[in-house]
Amino acid sequence: MFDVHDIRRDFPILAREVNGKPLVYLDNGASAQKPQVVIDAVTRAYAEEYANVHRGLHYLSNLATEKYEGVRGTVAKFLGAKDEEEIVLNSGTTEGINLVAYGWAMPRMEAGDEIVLSVMEHHANIVPWHFLRERQGVKLTWIDVDSTGALDPQKVIDAITPRTKLVAITHLSNVLGTVVDVKAICAAAHAKGVPVLVDGSQAAVHMPVDVRDIGCDFYAVTGHKLYGPSGSGAIYIKRDRMDEMRPFIGGGDMIKEVHKDEVIWNDPPMKFEAGTPGIVQTIGLGVALDYMMGLGMDNIAAHERDLTAYARERLDGLNWLQVQGTTPDKAAIFSFTLNGAAHAHDISTILDKKGVAVRAGQHCTGPLMDHLGLTATCRASFGVYNTREEVDVLIEALELAHELFG
Amino acid sequence: MFDVHDIRRDFPILAREVNGKPLVYLDNGASAQKPQVVIDAVTRAYAEEYANVHRGLHYLSNLATEKYEGVRGTVAKFLGAKDEEEIVLNSGTTEGINLVAYGWAMPRMEAGDEIVLSVMEHHANIVPWHFLRERQGVKLTWIDVDSTGALDPQKVIDAITPRTKLVAITHLSNVLGTVVDVKAICAAAHAKGVPVLVDGSQAAVHMPVDVRDIGCDFYAVTGHKLYGPSGSGAIYIKRDRMDEMRPFIGGGDMIKEVHKDEVIWNDPPMKFEAGTPGIVQTIGLGVALDYMMGLGMDNIAAHERDLTAYARERLDGLNWLQVQGTTPDKAAIFSFTLNGAAHAHDISTILDKKGVAVRAGQHCTGPLMDHLGLTATCRASFGVYNTREEVDVLIEALELAHELFG
Repeated sequence: MFDVHDIRRDFPILAREVNGKPLVYLDNGASAQKPQVVIDAVTRAYAEEYANVHRGLHYLSNLATEKYEGVRGTVAKFLGAKDEEEIVLNSGTTEGINLVAYGWAMPRMEAGDEIVLSVMEHHANIVPWHFLRERQGVKLTWIDVDSTGALDPQKVIDAITPRTKLVAITHLSNVLGTVVDVKAICAAAHAKGVPVLVDGSQAAVHMPVDVRDIGCDFYAVTGHKLYGPSGSGAIYIKRDRMDEMRPFIGGGDMIKEVHKDEVIWNDPPMKFEAGTPGIVQTIGLGVALDYMMGLGMDNIAAHERDLTAYARERLDGLNWLQVQGTTPDKAAIFSFTLNGAAHAHDISTILDKKGVAVRAGQHCTGPLMDHLGLTATCRASFGVYNTREEVDVLIEALELAHELFG
Repeated sequence: MFDVHDIRRDFPILAREVNGKPLVYLDNGASAQKPQVVIDAVTRAYAEEYANVHRGLHYLSNLATEKYEGVRGTVAKFLGAKDEEEIVLNSGTTEGINLVAYGWAMPRMEAGDEIVLSVMEHHANIVPWHFLRERQGVKLTWIDVDSTGALDPQKVIDAITPRTKLVAITHLSNVLGTVVDVKAICAAAHAKGVPVLVDGSQAAVHMPVDVRDIGCDFYAVTGHKLYGPSGSGAIYIKRDRMDEMRPFIGGGDMIKEVHKDEVIWNDPPMKFEAGTPGIVQTIGLGVALDYMMGLGMDNIAAHERDLTAYARERLDGLNWLQVQGTTPDKAAIFSFTLNGAAHAHDISTILDKKGVAVRAGQHCTGPLMDHLGLTATCRASFGVYNTREEVDVLIEALELAHELFG
C-alpha cells in the first residue's frame, strides 16, 4: 500500500519548519531529501563497518567491498540492465556523461562530425559536447521543442545525417516536465547506425525505467535526486559501447598492472572507476534504490500523476501565471513566470517565507531559456513524499506573491 | 593536551571487535576512520539541513551553500593557501591530479615533452601521465629511490631538461613512508621554469603542510584519508596555474552562460567544479579538518613520530621480517615481507584473525614494486588514534604468522 503520509514519516527533514512554517519541499528537481533508512545506512557504514574497498583482505575491507559491490546489481535491477557488468558507479550524471564524452566520443569524433541534441537538455548534457565542438570541431545539431514543450521524435530522427555520431537526449526535461519518446529515437537512430545517450537524471526518479526496452546505449542517473546521498550515481553502458571506450579518469583500481612504460587496464566496468570510489554514498544509493523499488516505481509514478493533475488544475486557475511545458503526459515539474515585473528570484523569496522551497533561475538550461525567451523561471518540482495539501500551500503562497508584486 | 585514549573515544568504530578480537586498525594508508563529529555532521546535513547548493534562494539551499562553501576556507587554512579561491573542492586526489592532467597538461604538452616523477608514486600520480604518454607522446622520466627508500632531490632536479614541462612527485610515500624534500625540488624546478605538482594524499594526514612554504603549484589531498567522508577532497592550485587551465569536467555550475553555439566559463575555482558537488561529504571534510587542526598538526606529527620509533624498534627485533623504507624521518607506514614462502595475503589473513587490519598487495605502486623486486607487501599504516599497545598486538600477530608460515 502506497500511503504518502506513511512515506513522509520516513523522511526526517519533512518534520522541520522553515521560517516558522512547516517545510514544503518542492525543489526535488535539484535534489531530493533522504529517507531514514538511507541516513542510517550512511551512519552505520561510518560508525561500524568502514574501510577502503577492493584489494583489502581484512574483515572490514571485505565487508565494505561486499556492500559496495552489491550496489552494482541493485542499479542494474533498477534500470533493467541485463548484467551488472554494464553499470559504472560514479558521482552522478555529470560524471557519467563526461565519461562518455571523453572515453567514447573524443577519440572517435573528427571535425565536421555531428551530435544531435534537444534544446531542452541540461548543461550536464550540453557542456561536454561543447568541449568537443571547441576542441575538435564537432558540430552540435539542436532540435527545438514545440509550443507545448513536446519534442517530436521524428524531428530528432530526421536530423541524423551520415556525419552524425551520437544522439544525446534527455528522457525527461528538468524544466518542462516533458517526457521524450527515447525508445522511438533509439530504434530509428540504431537503424542508421548511431548510438544514443539518454540523460535519465530526472526520468529515473519519477517512472519505471527499462534500458533494454528503451534500447539506449548509455543511460545516466544521479543518486542524490534518487533519494540517495550526494556524490553518488551510475551510468548504464551497453557492453558493445563499453568495449569501444578508452579509460577516462586514471588512477588505482582501473588498472591491472602499471609499469614505467606500460599500463594494462582493468576489465570493464572497473576500467572506468579510478581511485577510491564514493564508498559510503554508493552504499547509501543502493539502500535508496531498494527503498524506491520497495514502494514500487509504478506506485510512485501513479502518485506523482495524481499530484501533477491536481497541481496543473490549481495552477491553471491562476490567470496571471504561465506554466512552461503543457504536454499531456508532463511529469510533476512546473516552471512558471508571473505576469508583471516580478523576477523569479523575488517570487521564490516570498514562497520561502511561507516555508515553500522552490528553485529560481535558468535550471542549468541556457539554450532552453533562449528558446523560451526567458531569463529565469520559478520551478516547483515534486517527489514521492509531496501531497495535494502542499500544492494548496504553494498556490496560497503564489497568490500572496501576486498580491505583492502584481 | 593530546591524549590518544581520549582521541580513541572520538572514533566509534574503534570500540568494535573483529573476529572476536578488539579491532586494531592499521590500514590508515588506504583510508582512515571517522570521528563522531564528522559522522554527526553528515547525519545532521541529511536529516535537518539538506538541499542542493548554489543557485538556490530558499532557506535550506542557502544554509547548505553556506556550510559547503565554508569548507573552501577551511581547506585553505589547513594547507596554508593564501586565498580560498586557490582551492578546488573535489572527490579526492585521483580527481585532483586528473584535473591537472586534462586541464593544464594536456593542452600544453606535445610529443617529446617530459614529465619527471619518482618511482615511488601512487598510481593516481602515474596513470594520468601515462594517458599523456600514450595519447600525445609525452615522455615520463623516472627517478629511483636509494636502498633506504630515500629520494635525493638533486636527482629530481638534475633530470629536468629543456623539454620538461612538469615535475609530479609525492610528498610522502604510501609504501615506504619516505618524506620527500618537495620544497627544495620546487625551488630548483621553478628556477628552471618548471611547475611542480605534489601528491599530498598521505603527507597532509601526518604532518603540517604549508603550500606557500613548499612553493608548489599544485597540492592534492584526499578527504577520506584525512578522517573525512568518502568521496571528498580538494586540490590547491596556484592562481597563475589556474589561469592557464581549461575546464575538465563539463556541466552545471562551472559556466556563466550556455548557448547553442557558445559557452562562457565561470570564474575559477568554480570553473573546475561541474554539476552538483559532493555536498554532504564536503561539509564532513570541513569538520574533519577542523578536528585535526583542533588536535594540532604538530601534536599529531609528534604522536606519530613516537609510534614510528616504537614500531621500528619492535619490528627491527624480528630478524625474519624485512621492512621496506628505512629513512631516518620515515612516517608511520611500514611495508614488510616475511622470510620464506609466505605471501603477503596469507600474512594479512592471519593478522585479521587477531583483529589486526593491514593491507596486502601492491598498494597502487606498480613501478615501486618492480624497483624493489617484489610482487606484494603487507603494510601497517598508523593514524592519530593508534597506540604503542596496538604495535604490540601487531608484533604478536606477526610472530604467530611466522610460526605458521616460517
